[in-house]
Amino acid sequence: MTSDGAAPTTPNEDELALREPLVGGATAIESGYDSDVDVPADASASVPEARREEEPTTPATPPRRVNFRGFTARTQSLYLGTERTLSTQTTDSGAPEDAVESLDFADVDSHWARRARGRGVFSKVSAKWIVAAFIGVGVGTIAFLIDVSVLYAYRGRGKLFEVCRRRVHLALAMFAYGGVGVALAAIAGALTTYVAPRAKGAGVHYVMAMLNGIYIPKAFDASTLWVKAVATIAAVSSGLMIGPEGPLVHVGAAIAMQFTHGASSGMADLFQSDLDRSDFISAGAAAGIAAAFGAPIGGVLFSLEEASTFWRESTTRRALFSASIATFVLALARAVFLEGSAASEHTQMKNPGLLRVGDFDSTYFLIELPFYAALAGTCGVISGIVTKSIIFVSTNYTPQRNERRLAQVVLVSLACVVMFFGVAAAGKCVTETPGEVSRWSEASIRLWCAEGEYADLGSILLGNKNDVIAWVLGSPAKAHTLHALLLSFATTLISLIMAANLFVPAGLFMPTILWGSLLGRAAAIVVEHSLSPLGDLRVNPHAYALVGATAALAGTFRATISVVIIVLEGVGKSAFLFPLLIAVAGANLASRLFGASLYEEQLVRSKIPFLHAKPPKALLDDSITAFDVCARDVVAFKAIEKVSAIEEALAQTTHNGFPILSAKGKRVIGVILRKQLLVLLSRRAFVENLVHAPVLNSSAMEEGHDDDSSSIIARLGLTDVERERRCDLGVFMALSPASIAADARARDAYVLFTRLSLRHLCVVDAATGAIRGIITRHDLFDAAESVDRSLHHSVSSSSILL
Amino acid sequence: MTSDGAAPTTPNEDELALREPLVGGATAIESGYDSDVDVPADASASVPEARREEEPTTPATPPRRVNFRGFTARTQSLYLGTERTLSTQTTDSGAPEDAVESLDFADVDSHWARRARGRGVFSKVSAKWIVAAFIGVGVGTIAFLIDVSVLYAYRGRGKLFEVCRRRVHLALAMFAYGGVGVALAAIAGALTTYVAPRAKGAGVHYVMAMLNGIYIPKAFDASTLWVKAVATIAAVSSGLMIGPEGPLVHVGAAIAMQFTHGASSGMADLFQSDLDRSDFISAGAAAGIAAAFGAPIGGVLFSLEEASTFWRESTTRRALFSASIATFVLALARAVFLEGSAASEHTQMKNPGLLRVGDFDSTYFLIELPFYAALAGTCGVISGIVTKSIIFVSTNYTPQRNERRLAQVVLVSLACVVMFFGVAAAGKCVTETPGEVSRWSEASIRLWCAEGEYADLGSILLGNKNDVIAWVLGSPAKAHTLHALLLSFATTLISLIMAANLFVPAGLFMPTILWGSLLGRAAAIVVEHSLSPLGDLRVNPHAYALVGATAALAGTFRATISVVIIVLEGVGKSAFLFPLLIAVAGANLASRLFGASLYEEQLVRSKIPFLHAKPPKALLDDSITAFDVCARDVVAFKAIEKVSAIEEALAQTTHNGFPILSAKGKRVIGVILRKQLLVLLSRRAFVENLVHAPVLNSSAMEEGHDDDSSSIIARLGLTDVERERRCDLGVFMALSPASIAADARARDAYVLFTRLSLRHLCVVDAATGAIRGIITRHDLFDAAESVDRSLHHSVSSSSILL
Repeated sequence: MTSDGAAPTTPNEDELALREPLVGGATAIESGYDSDVDVPADASASVPEARREEEPTTPATPPRRVNFRGFTARTQSLYLGTERTLSTQTTDSGAPEDAVESLDFADVDSHWARRARGRGVFSKVSAKWIVAAFIGVGVGTIAFLIDVSVLYAYRGRGKLFEVCRRRVHLALAMFAYGGVGVALAAIAGALTTYVAPRAKGAGVHYVMAMLNGIYIPKAFDASTLWVKAVATIAAVSSGLMIGPEGPLVHVGAAIAMQFTHGASSGMADLFQSDLDRSDFISAGAAAGIAAAFGAPIGGVLFSLEEASTFWRESTTRRALFSASIATFVLALARAVFLEGSAASEHTQMKNPGLLRVGDFDSTYFLIELPFYAALAGTCGVISGIVTKSIIFVSTNYTPQRNERRLAQVVLVSLACVVMFFGVAAAGKCVTETPGEVSRWSEASIRLWCAEGEYADLGSILLGNKNDVIAWVLGSPAKAHTLHALLLSFATTLISLIMAANLFVPAGLFMPTILWGSLLGRAAAIVVEHSLSPLGDLRVNPHAYALVGATAALAGTFRATISVVIIVLEGVGKSAFLFPLLIAVAGANLASRLFGASLYEEQLVRSKIPFLHAKPPKALLDDSITAFDVCARDVVAFKAIEKVSAIEEALAQTTHNGFPILSAKGKRVIGVILRKQLLVLLSRRAFVENLVHAPVLNSSAMEEGHDDDSSSIIARLGLTDVERERRCDLGVFMALSPASIAADARARDAYVLFTRLSLRHLCVVDAATGAIRGIITRHDLFDAAESVDRSLHHSVSSSSILL
Repeated sequence: MTSDGAAPTTPNEDELALREPLVGGATAIESGYDSDVDVPADASASVPEARREEEPTTPATPPRRVNFRGFTARTQSLYLGTERTLSTQTTDSGAPEDAVESLDFADVDSHWARRARGRGVFSKVSAKWIVAAFIGVGVGTIAFLIDVSVLYAYRGRGKLFEVCRRRVHLALAMFAYGGVGVALAAIAGALTTYVAPRAKGAGVHYVMAMLNGIYIPKAFDASTLWVKAVATIAAVSSGLMIGPEGPLVHVGAAIAMQFTHGASSGMADLFQSDLDRSDFISAGAAAGIAAAFGAPIGGVLFSLEEASTFWRESTTRRALFSASIATFVLALARAVFLEGSAASEHTQMKNPGLLRVGDFDSTYFLIELPFYAALAGTCGVISGIVTKSIIFVSTNYTPQRNERRLAQVVLVSLACVVMFFGVAAAGKCVTETPGEVSRWSEASIRLWCAEGEYADLGSILLGNKNDVIAWVLGSPAKAHTLHALLLSFATTLISLIMAANLFVPAGLFMPTILWGSLLGRAAAIVVEHSLSPLGDLRVNPHAYALVGATAALAGTFRATISVVIIVLEGVGKSAFLFPLLIAVAGANLASRLFGASLYEEQLVRSKIPFLHAKPPKALLDDSITAFDVCARDVVAFKAIEKVSAIEEALAQTTHNGFPILSAKGKRVIGVILRKQLLVLLSRRAFVENLVHAPVLNSSAMEEGHDDDSSSIIARLGLTDVERERRCDLGVFMALSPASIAADARARDAYVLFTRLSLRHLCVVDAATGAIRGIITRHDLFDAAESVDRSLHHSVSSSSILL
């Protein structure tokens, strides 16, 4: 049955460890394997989509010579993704999601690594803290740049409007105001479309995917970083209904990524492992949220609750460090440059984030708690509908060609600004209360109103979002009419849904907070009115606004603890603890009726094989075994394998890992990665060479090549003589790979895979130990997806409660 | 080599699943196994201490008849621990720590379970939320009872002092005051010593152990619960330098435990698995901290950061639910019963916890941040010294006999009260500021002072800790002299170290916060004095007090995020975010020079085999393999095993799990638990009976007996005829047990074991798959401990930074 072939003298591991000169060994690749497992007719279907789809595209790429010996330079370009995605660049949504690949969180424990290891652990740990500090400083600085640019953009536009209106005509003023906005949006759109398509949207789902162990090309490289930063400034300044918070998370992660593979940083050598990278990305994401909301702990908890799948205690501490520094840098920069106070001066740094809320009354009645719950439930329902709408728009109205994408940005931003002016015209001019003017000066927008007045709807829709939110949360009780609140609420929702899917960097935190607080203020008026027969009960409108905003956030992003802490830290009102807890609970309960959270929907839509910590419902059926979900087209090697066999396997499959089998019994004794094999072949690390001249160093082995384009094989330039040589894979393979019995439950395989952050899980026969298949991320993801989409939805949503 | 014996017709799993009438099968227990692995001379040393030490004690217990068919009642008494620890009750420290045992977090996936399963999942989930609500209500109620009892105890004692002083003499007043305190301490001591020794101390380390997967007898049963609640009231009221916060965590966990095995609750059937139990214990612990500090999110984060090892998203949400309810119940009860406001009235519930802090100035200068860091570092150093001192006292001055323990409680409380009065006499009488009297009325204690005055040191040392801490944190700038602060700081430290190890329930949060804030206030005076040459800089003493308190907490308990959130939620001063972050970082950095945290030291001292998520340093050496750390005296069965063999194995070993081996090749095909075997034998579930009358139901199989006393075997009353029968273990064994190659790194085995929450990890030969050993919690713990204690310390402490 097995093609054991010529020489049965394959040595066992102990002999391999001794590195005696090895002769003989197995000669044939174990591809005759499939014959003894019953491969179903549609066996090829078990090969993940991504693997098969890539193959046809690669021959189009002309074979270029790659210097396999320049490993640092090559690995770098690999992680920067400059090479791999050239051919798939212009596919759907500018982001070739199919090219995703798993990361290797586990370090390779091979005989070779055991001998070669011993780099300084202490210096690495210190360096990690230094890098965490740099990430914090970087994120804080970029957050400040965004903050100050958007501030001056709004101020300048306001002045332009004022000058035009006074000197020429209102129509020209509106035209100029709108024109600047459209131009800014066009700049953001052009940068995103033509330079870095991965900078589109919030980008939080890329961070989630990376932390889940999925490599997404170009998502975190330098060009995406600068485009995201610059285009975020332009897009937020343009007046589109978007915010900079989500993009800051992406920026934080991208900054973190620069430190782990930067050409000039010299850090690259220290942090080669994917686990280190994920550590820094957690810290960067935490720093992003921390700077956005002035909430370092909230940022860490967001990174923990929303973005991360695997989390270590050390990650928490380093993320908190980065987040604190980012918040501090932003607060200090604001204090020094914007508020003009020197560092030694008295400063509270009370609301150090981008979102600043004034001080307001923090009392409420216990009897109001049910109203808070009802408001939270309503916000949850609306969040669910908004999420569904965004996904609907994204599914049906995403242009495929670049010029159309840019045109969409221009048209939508034009439509929005026309809508804003139109709705503003439906509003009233309100006299400014003298004491209040200074507090909300940036928020109140005069438009066509008389001196000393401002447009109530115009101020909400056309103002700088930071100031508008502070105004809606903190303005005095009678500042807004129900009519203005409901009208601006509806307009905000519509413009949010229109803007969410444009090809610009777009965060939804800000607009979500805005519509939530608008609805909350409206609810406060309704509650006060309906309670008035009961006596003179003065409800606190700020509490309703805060509950509405928190519920909207919780409903859209499905976070619990992190949202409450972000709001508590950002607003500084711990007296509102119970209302906020009710807001989060109500919104989560209500919104889950409408399916998964926005990020989860984005992951699904982007076809990112994201594995949740909890097994999906499809795998909870005990009758589904590990064998049912595994890929059965296993290509395996022997410990001593012929070069031609390795080359053939590399060329004919796109597998990233190959099990090494024992000569007898086909037991898995190790797993070797594609990138390891490519390094071995490119360095001509044959048994014969290796014994005489051990040319390899361990770090080269641990990084290595990850490209699965088969043209790489051709570039190896193996001669026929070399093809007859053999490689001692037993020395380099990862020892004791994870395995599971074929008749074990699929859910157990899922748990094993996710808890241990595996990339390959061998499925073996319980009785004999022979290999029967391999489970990868794609297999588990496909198995989970094999139930229909609606069922999948109920799984995602029910995971909120279970 | 193998004793395959008579009939080699052992069926494979598929046949077992079909449950055809089985005849033949293996006849001999595979104890001849050890012969083909090279057992070293000291092989018996690899049997964990606990297993061996228990055996000699059991013959002392007279064989009692246990009704094996009354499973509910029996399991209950098992988990209540009434039976198991009778014989070991009076050993060291009243707590037979050796009797600890691992929990089964994994559900048993056997052929039997696959067919029998299908209980309603939905109802279970709903019931979990209801139980979480009850846990919250229970913890909130007990927290309120503690709060109100302590309040009235202090008030009553104060009145008694006042009456005696005025009517008779100061000496009698002091005598009466001290006498009541000593009597209360004696009550707490007597209850703890004679009724529930596990109620001693904070009990947080029991919660940590339980959540780590270690069952500690009697730690969470009903008697411990009520003793802990009552004795905490008595002990805190007695005036000892202890607080109720830690005990509330233990109480919360114990309340949670009542719901999972309560006789009357009817819930017991729903929540049989150890995983469910750990879920509720997390929620209970979170609710305890939440009620103590009025910090629901802080409670959840404390439970996550400090107490838990394994954590699921669903646990977070349920714990937050319990914690919110507990906080709300306490706040509502206080509002209604203590502050006299009806529920409909206007209430802020601003500081809803036991610890209440008034409103105070929240400004600080940026230039002060270095001083905060220095203060935090000092607090960290002191925390480290305090921890070491407590451990020293506990190691050297723990009486073994009950009467001595009680005497220690009486003498120490007497010494403390004498010391407090003595130090108070060294203080001054201070005139009360009229406006301040009402705010700190409970804190200011008059003693021998004139009307309208209070004793400065006496108030700090003899007052109700809640009020004293609120006073020290919030009192006006000139309220305390440096002399009074330093003297009370020193007295607090000494009395804290004296009281920490008494046989009473004793939490250290309160006294730690007290000394931290006292030192902070003192630091504020010193800083103001030393900065005065630079100009008129008015430092904020409240900020220093808060930083000192936070740093003291962080240094003692080594938490980061949870401490900051607890303080932020409890005090409601988010403006202090940066000082608090500096406090936590500085204290953690400084205190780690002095070894592990207090809880870790308690775990080590209690010999609880706690496994941290991070592999210990001893196992980081790549040359240590899984085989090096495993137990090699494996006793295994065949799928069809003779009853006499099973009985013999149960009687002669204390193993809790037995691998089932394939007939050929000795591959592990399953693992069966001791408790399953006992149920099988007691129900006479032999192959012959089973085929004709399947008497078992699945739930009985899943719980089952956990007692490893060999006298149980005798009580089974097996006849010689029955001993010749066979059991079909293949049907009931857990399929596809976790296994690892013998030459895999020990650290990988550790990670596998902890990440998957295993109880048994089979070590198999990489090449053949034959079993070579088993790794249990004790093996990993012993391997980690085999390096010397000082090295272990540096591991624990370095894990703070790494």
